[in-house]
Amino acid sequence: MCFVQIVVLAGGTGGARFLRGVRAAAPEAEITVVVNTGDDVTMHGLRICPDLDTVMYTLGGGIDEERGWGRAGESWTVKAELAAYDADPSWFGLGDRDLATHLIRTRMLDAGYPLSAVTTALAVRWQPGVTLIPMSDQRVETHVVVPDPETGRQRAIHFQEWWVRHRAAPDPSGFVQVGVDAARPAPGVTEAFASADAVLLAPSNPVVSIGTILGVPGVREALLGSRGRIVGVSPIVGGAVVRGMADRCLPVLGIEVSAEGVGRHYGARSDGGLLDAWLVAPDDRADVPGVDVRQVPLLMSSPEATANLARAALDAVGV
Amino acid sequence: MCFVQIVVLAGGTGGARFLRGVRAAAPEAEITVVVNTGDDVTMHGLRICPDLDTVMYTLGGGIDEERGWGRAGESWTVKAELAAYDADPSWFGLGDRDLATHLIRTRMLDAGYPLSAVTTALAVRWQPGVTLIPMSDQRVETHVVVPDPETGRQRAIHFQEWWVRHRAAPDPSGFVQVGVDAARPAPGVTEAFASADAVLLAPSNPVVSIGTILGVPGVREALLGSRGRIVGVSPIVGGAVVRGMADRCLPVLGIEVSAEGVGRHYGARSDGGLLDAWLVAPDDRADVPGVDVRQVPLLMSSPEATANLARAALDAVGV
Repeated sequence: MCFVQIVVLAGGTGGARFLRGVRAAAPEAEITVVVNTGDDVTMHGLRICPDLDTVMYTLGGGIDEERGWGRAGESWTVKAELAAYDADPSWFGLGDRDLATHLIRTRMLDAGYPLSAVTTALAVRWQPGVTLIPMSDQRVETHVVVPDPETGRQRAIHFQEWWVRHRAAPDPSGFVQVGVDAARPAPGVTEAFASADAVLLAPSNPVVSIGTILGVPGVREALLGSRGRIVGVSPIVGGAVVRGMADRCLPVLGIEVSAEGVGRHYGARSDGGLLDAWLVAPDDRADVPGVDVRQVPLLMSSPEATANLARAALDAVGV
Repeated sequence: MCFVQIVVLAGGTGGARFLRGVRAAAPEAEITVVVNTGDDVTMHGLRICPDLDTVMYTLGGGIDEERGWGRAGESWTVKAELAAYDADPSWFGLGDRDLATHLIRTRMLDAGYPLSAVTTALAVRWQPGVTLIPMSDQRVETHVVVPDPETGRQRAIHFQEWWVRHRAAPDPSGFVQVGVDAARPAPGVTEAFASADAVLLAPSNPVVSIGTILGVPGVREALLGSRGRIVGVSPIVGGAVVRGMADRCLPVLGIEVSAEGVGRHYGARSDGGLLDAWLVAPDDRADVPGVDVRQVPLLMSSPEATANLARAALDAVGV
């Protein structure tokens, strides 16, 4: 028996919700998710992988649906205690339930297990119904080049500090993937692309989620070598982000904040880019030469709407 | 101005309560506490120092008074989550509030700070009103030799596993201080003894608390070199332990479970032992040659009773 094999590139909340749609739209498929780990960070000695956890909790039924990250029914006792000790940093959302995941991950990494093996072990509890793989077992941490508020001089701060602490307020002049030169695709990534019947780019941040995954040496080549067709879903609807802060990231790379801008940034596969197909919202138009642009409802406002979006993505690549 | 200097050797709950009495009985004194770290353990990657924390929380107003260990108003979210992951061990009482202390300690130790410096840093929050010093910056972990329940063969398990997991049920045939050969007194221990006007042995477990401290090479010599007199408080009242499981430990070393038995085990300072004075309960009698044995109420049933006990101890050594 041979199941359809689908690979999805995903970041955090938007990618995780999209994946629920893919799972619903193709319940018989073998779905492999290559997850961005550029947001990963070590806080209070704990190794935290926000996107991996968001996908795992979302697909495993443990996510806080309203926030879109962290655990449902979360409490914040440890965070308050750390603050009472004046232990920096205090701005990161370190929940008590979430913390157990970080403890196990940190302990396993310290024992020498690679992140991909840790991810598999954690997923045993959550049974996400997909195969979760970090983009790389090596650390690749996104840093953001921003002006120092006091001196005005450019400096690179961790993505989480920019995103969570400063709410993406300082204008970035660039993004740096610290460690990317030594990174390799995690075990399973290249193989998944090779056997994929379809590759989906989730409506995640094109710069600091999808872009970070594609920045790992070997990933882009493996992706383009896939025998399956590649479809992307625009994270921009009506010239604005549906969620997150892609509108703060795209201009840094000179990309227009529009469905067309992101589509052209990804580019046509026939022309050295990535896309065979590109999904944009019904009211958006996008001229991306060489790419099958389709207008479909993009808002993941209900499980049905999300499944329909995923179905449209799979239709666009003939699966 | 010159304050009276008092050094107390202490374990966990009983020692911590006794210290509240000493602080109340001698509010002007400089009190240094040398704390047992033989119970210390690493769980889920966190370095846990039960006796140091019990003393710190008790004197700092954060202790759970009823349990006698851990934080007041404690919650157990992380513990439940770790159990949901089937992460061993699940039998240790790892509270959410308490966990923040362990996180900071672990992070500082990993950064290279010695345990004594970590203890000083944590105490900034708690302001215990005494100087807390771990007996040693080196790891000295008490292991208990017990028969394996399946094979019957003797094996050494960590003290916490015997004490907390098995509730001290298997009969021990010995105690082993793993790491003791390489241990030295922590900075400040030897100096505190040298300048002490009085040394108090708290009514802590004579084997696995006081005995463990005395087992660190150099501690016993420093203690005996003190110009101050040494008084001990019996943890045994009426032939039974007031608290804890000293009655499970004393027979292993051939010590009678009585105020006299423990007094003779510590021995007279004039005869190569430790004690100048020994406090026993009013209904107990103890013949310890060469030692000033005094009968005083030992039950720390109220702050006043505890302060009176401490006052009697200080009186016995002329402070």
